[in-house]
Order: sequence, then structure tokens, then C-alpha cells
Amino acid sequence: MSEKVKHKHGGDIYEVSKDYGINRQSILDFSANINPLGLPDTILKVIENGIKDIVNYPDPECRELRTAISGYLNVPEEGIVVGNGASEVIFLLFEVLKPNKVLIPAPSFAEYERAAEKTGSKVEFFRLLEEQDFKLQVDSLAEAMDRDVDLVILCNPNNPTSTLTGRDELLKLIEKARNKGVNIVIDEAFIELTAGGNGNSMAEYLKHYENMFIVRAFTKLFAVPGLRLGYGAGSSDIVKKMWREKQPWSVNSFACCTGRLLTDEKDYMKKTHKWLKEEKSRFYNELCKFSCLKAFEPQTNFILLKLVNTELDAAALKEKMIRKGILIRDASNFKFLGREFFRVAIKDRESNNKFIEALSEILGGF
Amino acid sequence: MSEKVKHKHGGDIYEVSKDYGINRQSILDFSANINPLGLPDTILKVIENGIKDIVNYPDPECRELRTAISGYLNVPEEGIVVGNGASEVIFLLFEVLKPNKVLIPAPSFAEYERAAEKTGSKVEFFRLLEEQDFKLQVDSLAEAMDRDVDLVILCNPNNPTSTLTGRDELLKLIEKARNKGVNIVIDEAFIELTAGGNGNSMAEYLKHYENMFIVRAFTKLFAVPGLRLGYGAGSSDIVKKMWREKQPWSVNSFACCTGRLLTDEKDYMKKTHKWLKEEKSRFYNELCKFSCLKAFEPQTNFILLKLVNTELDAAALKEKMIRKGILIRDASNFKFLGREFFRVAIKDRESNNKFIEALSEILGGF
Repeated sequence: MSEKVKHKHGGDIYEVSKDYGINRQSILDFSANINPLGLPDTILKVIENGIKDIVNYPDPECRELRTAISGYLNVPEEGIVVGNGASEVIFLLFEVLKPNKVLIPAPSFAEYERAAEKTGSKVEFFRLLEEQDFKLQVDSLAEAMDRDVDLVILCNPNNPTSTLTGRDELLKLIEKARNKGVNIVIDEAFIELTAGGNGNSMAEYLKHYENMFIVRAFTKLFAVPGLRLGYGAGSSDIVKKMWREKQPWSVNSFACCTGRLLTDEKDYMKKTHKWLKEEKSRFYNELCKFSCLKAFEPQTNFILLKLVNTELDAAALKEKMIRKGILIRDASNFKFLGREFFRVAIKDRESNNKFIEALSEILGGF
Repeated sequence: MSEKVKHKHGGDIYEVSKDYGINRQSILDFSANINPLGLPDTILKVIENGIKDIVNYPDPECRELRTAISGYLNVPEEGIVVGNGASEVIFLLFEVLKPNKVLIPAPSFAEYERAAEKTGSKVEFFRLLEEQDFKLQVDSLAEAMDRDVDLVILCNPNNPTSTLTGRDELLKLIEKARNKGVNIVIDEAFIELTAGGNGNSMAEYLKHYENMFIVRAFTKLFAVPGLRLGYGAGSSDIVKKMWREKQPWSVNSFACCTGRLLTDEKDYMKKTHKWLKEEKSRFYNELCKFSCLKAFEPQTNFILLKLVNTELDAAALKEKMIRKGILIRDASNFKFLGREFFRVAIKDRESNNKFIEALSEILGGF
């Protein structure tokens, strides 16, 4: 079956568990970029209270959820759409916009290309350069928007490079895009997991730019990838069309009731920032000590790494790490990345230390 | 927002609750066709055990679930696809088959037409006739498969007519369709809620007919519309393509673990059949007593009704019933049904009696 899934992502502990005969619970998963603080208390309450509700169809318009997101982003409810994870929002957006030609800075999340292909859009990649530490050069990207391009989709901070483009830069881009009649989609799935948090988001500029659309998710911030909840914010015109095209009830009953996390979990968010501040630079610095690794400085909760001065490639390293109960993300199937690249999540200190220990056993110390 | 949702379905207790200021919990919902036995015990266990799993991505290939469904239907795992409700399975199937022209017996579930439109297929309706109690005439349908038609999608038992087409009839249809190179999709969402249960299913013929695809769901049988879980069975070739096109992780963690209901809830299924046997004919007979109602004999857990000899239409009746805390399905937006038609679920005896009581207050007794 595995070969049937077109693009492999991280986090498939089910496959590893089956292929290697390891108990799923005992795998230390560094391949999925999830908040290591685990489930916020509110989610447990939401699920307990929500069990009785699964005998009813979920609210097809997700009214309660939209209201909560609207308050959180300070965007009118008419500008909010919700979906079965950010994936559904992205696919729906492409379906509605039906772009002729899409420009995608890459390496980035593979589902953008899939969504574009599905809509029959031409795809062009804007290559992020290793020698620039994969940082997005906004002026070059704007130049690459030729007359055929009608949509640019980018991830900020970007997956798998963990780079962040500042708001001033993005504003320049959006301004230029508007002049050229190009829509800009910004996937902010990890935005709360950056040092500036929501301060790095472009949400407050939505009211000025009809050509901007923002994708978000509960997944990474609240550690709920299994719940399936993403959302999008943009012009009420586009959002209205998305609601019309959406499959009914794609957001399940539990997900429909999690809007209150955005108001009730301020403390969880604070703890998250404390953890990120402490552990991001510490883990990165530890990884920098390996002579056969090049670590790219992370702006969010994961790190892109390159194997250098070694015969080992990412697939072989992944294999060896699995034998130690640790799962990494072989990043070689990301566009423009070679077989030396892999990605690891930043987890809690104890797990990160275990990771360093296992890695040094394989790579022969520092 | 409501006007943005293209096709209205039953079960929107959220809208009613908001519009009429009625507490959602106190609405007696006859508009959604859900097993009134409520949640099987196993589902509570699945959810309790599953909470810890939502910090992980769901299994993208839903291995455990596929194995369970494969055993239940006696269809190889390679022939099973799962989705976020039957809706995702239907949309995905259209995306993969990309039919030129689709023939849909109607009135039926509105999402078939939406899925066809989305794929850019031409849609032709095969009208089910009121004078034939909306029963499908298989020979006429086969004749209507002209050279342009490459897909027929039908619901068996059919929603909203509650009619069931027998296996011998369907075999004739599938045979003729194969000769004409036409694919037949059978939505068996309610099949377990018929007198013969799985004995009415076409699943066992899948191995003989590559041109047949079956859609199923956990929704109605196990009373879990909020959970979002549907599945499909067909040729391994089509199923493989569906897995490739599918959005990743569209089936949430809880839904991924509910396969065991199919083996562990034999007793629930027995009780379900006992209830259905007792209550279906009783409720139908009660409804037949109303002089201003025409009730169509149900083959599954809901009844199509027509207001006759009265000024009242379904919309007005719905309004009056809501004031009594009861929600019915105004069926006038089903293709070929007029404003006199409505649909009601068959519920537990107590609820059904309340329904009869409320209805007789409005319709002035028998």
C-alpha cells in the first residue's frame, strides 16, 4: 500500500511500527513537528463533553468555531473558513481560485504541488538556495512572477527549512503581487511556534489586501494532528465560494468544539513560548557540534539538517535511528533537497537529549 | 451564512437552535436518519483510549480500519478505501473516474450531483415515478444508459424514498452496464438498516464485476455522524487511484480506530434489527392513518411523506413542528419532489409516539 501514497510525509509511526515490529507508543517521533507540551487540558474537556454530540451531524457551518477564530485573528467571521486540517483548506482554495500557473518557493510542503496539480494548474518552483540558508529573497520572487503566474503559495515559517520571512518583506511582496494581479497564499501553520508568535502573522493586513489568503491550523500549536482542524482567512468573496464548494460536515464534532482553546489556553501558549525559547537554541547548538552535520538555524520548532563529510545518507541514518527507537524525517523527497537532508522536530529537553545521544552513537561522537 | 451552503441537508440542529432560540439538546431530530439506539459501548471505549493518540497524525493508510472492513465485507484490503464520511469517498471516486456523463436516478442524495458537477461531468437524471411509489425500474434505467453515459450512481436503499432494489434486479443492471462499458456506483449507506441487512448488499459480487463500486458508512448504523467515517469498495485499480488522490489524514484518529465496532458490536446490530422490525411497520401504519398524508412504505429507517388534501406545505409543517421541538426534513429541495414532500426518521417508540402526537395536533387528528 505504501507506494500508493503519492507523497510521503513525516509522522507515519504506524508504518514504522509495522515494518520494524516496534510498539507504536515507544517510538520517539522526531519526524512530526508537534508541540511537545502535549494536549492542552481544554481538549480533554472538549472531547469528554463532545462524546454525546457525535450522534448528531457536526454543524455544517461550524458557527461556534468560526466565531472563536474570528476573535482570535481579529478577522470578520465572513472571512473565515474551516476544514479537515490545513490540507482541506489548501485543496479547497485551489479549487475555488483555479489558478493557471502557480509559483511555489521550494523546498516546501508537498501538498501545495498536489493541490495545484489536482486543479490542473501549471506549477513553477522558485528555488530557495542552500548558499542563502534557504532564506526567501522576496525581490527575486517578485521578479519571478511573470505574466502567466496568478498565484504564489508560500509557507511561513517554511517547512522543512525552518526559515521565517519578516512582515515588512512580505508586505513588499503582497504589494507587488497586487500590482501584477497575483494572489498570495501564506501558510502560517507554524506561526505561533516562532519567537514572535502571532506578531509574525500577516492576518492583520488581510483587510488591506484582497489578494492575500492565510492558512492556519490547530495541529502543531495544540499538538492535535489526530483531531483534524485547520482554517483559512481571506476575502469574504473567496471564503464564501470555499464554503459553497466544501464537502458537507468535513470538520468532525470534536474539532467543531475546540474554538475555546484559543481563549482558554493562554497559559499553555505561554509555556509553549518558554519551552521554545529555551530548547530551540540549545538543541540547535548541540546539533551544530557534530562535524558531519550542517544544521540550518531554525526559526520555528524543527531543524533542517544536512549530512556532510560522511558516506551516510538520510535514508540510512533514518534506518539506524529507528533501530534506536527514534523516527526522523528523511527530507530527500522535498523538491531541490538531496539525499543528505533530514528534518527533526524540536521536542522536550529529555527527548532532545536522547536524540543527541543516539545520533552521536551513530555519527561517532562530535 | 446559510445561503452559502449550496445544498441543505437534514440534521442541522445548530441552525434551528440559533434561529428559534431552542436548546440544541432538547430538539427531537427526525431530520437525520440515525440509529436511535445511540452510541454503541465500543465507541466510548475507542474514544477514551484514543484521546492520547490525537497527538500523533492519524495513520494515513488507515491500516487497522481497512483490515476490519475487509473482514466485514469479505473484500480484499486492496479493494477498500476509507474517507471522511461517505461524502469524501463519493467525491474522490468522481475525481478518479472523471465520468463524461453521469446518470442519477432521482430523487436521491444531492451530493452525487455536486460531486459530478465538481468533476465537470454532465448530469442526467433518471426520474423515479411517484405513481410507481418511486421504485427503481431497472430495465428502464438500463435503457436510459445511452452511449454517452459512463457512470450511474444510485443509492440503495434510496434516500429520501426509502425504497430498496433487490439483488437480482441490480445484478441484471450491472450486467447490462458492463456490456455497455458503464460503471455502477451503489451507495449502501443504509443497507444494514434494512430487513435483510448485509444480505441486501452487492458486496459479494464485487469480485465478479470490475464496473461496480460500493459506498458505505459507519454513520447511520452506529449513530456516529459526528465522527466522520465512510468507506468504499471496488476494483483494486480504482481504489489504488483513490488512495493516491486522497488528501492525507482525512480520517481522524478516533475514526481510524473504530474498525473493531464491526466485530465487537454484533449484539448492537441484533438489537438494531429488532427495533427496526418492530418500529418500522408500526410507525408507518400510524402515519398511514392521517387523512392528509400519503406515506410511502419504507424499506429502511426513514419514511417519505406527502401532504395531501391540505393547504399546508412541508416548509410550513416544518415550522410548526419546530415550535413543538421536533425537526423534520423538508424534502422539497430533492430533485423532482414538490413542496408537499417531507422525510422523517424512524426513531425509538417513545419519540415516534411524540411525533405522532405533535403531528396530529397540527394536522387535526386522523
